[in-house]
Amino acid sequence: MTKRRISNLQLLISVVGARKCDAKTYALAEEVGFELARRGATVVCGGLGGVMQAACQGAKSAGGRTIGILPGRNYRDANPYVDIPIVTGIGEARNSIVVRTARAVIAIGGEYGTLSEIAFALKFGIPVIGLATWDLARGKKRARIIEARDAKEAVELVMSAIVA
Amino acid sequence: MTKRRISNLQLLISVVGARKCDAKTYALAEEVGFELARRGATVVCGGLGGVMQAACQGAKSAGGRTIGILPGRNYRDANPYVDIPIVTGIGEARNSIVVRTARAVIAIGGEYGTLSEIAFALKFGIPVIGLATWDLARGKKRARIIEARDAKEAVELVMSAIVA
Amino acid sequence: MTKRRISNLQLLISVVGARKCDAKTYALAEEVGFELARRGATVVCGGLGGVMQAACQGAKSAGGRTIGILPGRNYRDANPYVDIPIVTGIGEARNSIVVRTARAVIAIGGEYGTLSEIAFALKFGIPVIGLATWDLARGKKRARIIEARDAKEAVELVMSAIVA
Amino acid sequence: MTKRRISNLQLLISVVGARKCDAKTYALAEEVGFELARRGATVVCGGLGGVMQAACQGAKSAGGRTIGILPGRNYRDANPYVDIPIVTGIGEARNSIVVRTARAVIAIGGEYGTLSEIAFALKFGIPVIGLATWDLARGKKRARIIEARDAKEAVELVMSAIVA
Repeated sequence: MTKRRISNLQLLISVVGARKCDAKTYALAEEVGFELARRGATVVCGGLGGVMQAACQGAKSAGGRTIGILPGRNYRDANPYVDIPIVTGIGEARNSIVVRTARAVIAIGGEYGTLSEIAFALKFGIPVIGLATWDLARGKKRARIIEARDAKEAVELVMSAIVA
Repeated sequence: MTKRRISNLQLLISVVGARKCDAKTYALAEEVGFELARRGATVVCGGLGGVMQAACQGAKSAGGRTIGILPGRNYRDANPYVDIPIVTGIGEARNSIVVRTARAVIAIGGEYGTLSEIAFALKFGIPVIGLATWDLARGKKRARIIEARDAKEAVELVMSAIVA
Repeated sequence: MTKRRISNLQLLISVVGARKCDAKTYALAEEVGFELARRGATVVCGGLGGVMQAACQGAKSAGGRTIGILPGRNYRDANPYVDIPIVTGIGEARNSIVVRTARAVIAIGGEYGTLSEIAFALKFGIPVIGLATWDLARGKKRARIIEARDAKEAVELVMSAIVA
Repeated sequence: MTKRRISNLQLLISVVGARKCDAKTYALAEEVGFELARRGATVVCGGLGGVMQAACQGAKSAGGRTIGILPGRNYRDANPYVDIPIVTGIGEARNSIVVRTARAVIAIGGEYGTLSEIAFALKFGIPVIGLATWDLARGKKRARIIEARDAKEAVELVMSAIVA
């Protein structure tokens, strides 16, 4: 069965990273959000501060749309640049939803929560583009993170990964 | 701390009901979606067929926006009127997210899945407006479902419940 | 493929009810736990107080085993009669797990959380035995809760429902 | 408030690893399960095959107890050495529960699912002992995995980590 789409199905790209970050990482995430929105993508994230907020702020400054998939129980936990707060109430288990909802994931810096999101994306076969993020190896195996040098390259790599 | 909102924070209202329904219930849910969108609300639902699809179809015909919070792992499970598919992969446990994400819930007809959503909404203190849905009693206690007679009244009751 | 069991696969029965209850309901839940343990069943519950604690206390007084599937992040939230605390951290979404894990559910009294568990059990096709619990109707439809008059009858009905 | 424990609160240790593994890894996981059970710990795992099954088999051969926290909807998915199948129905989001439920985690080899479990454990502050598992670095930062050379050392390190 094919279903004809009547909706404005949006291209959803997740940006993952720590809820606290330095100014340089914030600026990087903001530029990623800006570039994603400029190309028509909707930014998905965990809805909180740091890299999540920066990506939303960047998207909004380009007139884009943003979705925050929150761990807690209150939509007011969302950073002020989130248009649509999804209130999961399932804590860190929501990391798997942040990832599954996206066609590709951009990981920026990041702590252990980000690492769990990278791991889920790789498990689900969702492309992961990394900016100064985790380096993962197991014996001779190396995780399939596509490394980017800057925000623009990261967003270009996302677009190629989706078309491919 | 107050956060100034830079986003276009959307008013999210959930419509819950069975994934299969008769034509009369479908028409009712479609009208509910239409009325919600006409008043600027974004329709949230479980993203599948039946009442969920009808509510999205109605919202789209009024130029509105729709979100489907899917139980499965694939955004293609969404009905063709969903703009934003949230891919949870957590099965029926996603019912609690459909409810938490909304400022109010409209329940239309419904089977046991709908009953679980009504129960969660009542537990979380989220207003529930019912259209030909479950009648719940325990001893002398009666569940706090606000009954509406038609789609327009349901949407008006939602708006009053939120302001109150 | 058939797998030969080497484990001591346990018969898991869930007891659901409010985390606060009056003395009469507590005594009823305690007797249910006692009767389940006496017949070799392991009591599963949400791990907190009230009906959950009473069922565990009854099971322990008969030398039985108990599992508490907790909503929060800390095993210390478990009532003192829980042998095995499962720490979900997913809040009320864990209600679906309390139900799925069991071969049958006994609902005692209960608030809206209990109602969500009854709804999930009915949706999943798991038998629900009720003791002074919700009365559910939708139009001419009536939910398939098997009503028991006392603790012993409830446990006998569980055993019949499983064999059937 | 202190609660006096009446239960036989069990020491729960999770063993995480891939659902398919070579014979050498299987033997290693089996020995880990055996050593854990010999010291009175209950083995928790994801309930499926490979490393999960091996750890359960080892525990049962030492007369121990085993818990499988399953991603799917059916207790029959559990490997034949699981005593208590917890049926989550929430897919890979259950990885966070496998980790939270334990006082410490032993990671053996592993694919991306295992990586997500390591990440969650480190995020939650739960000690992770690794046997031929992921090597994680971010810039100059190195993840806090405690590396063990063999099964006995892994179990000894678990016991020290818990006491500390």
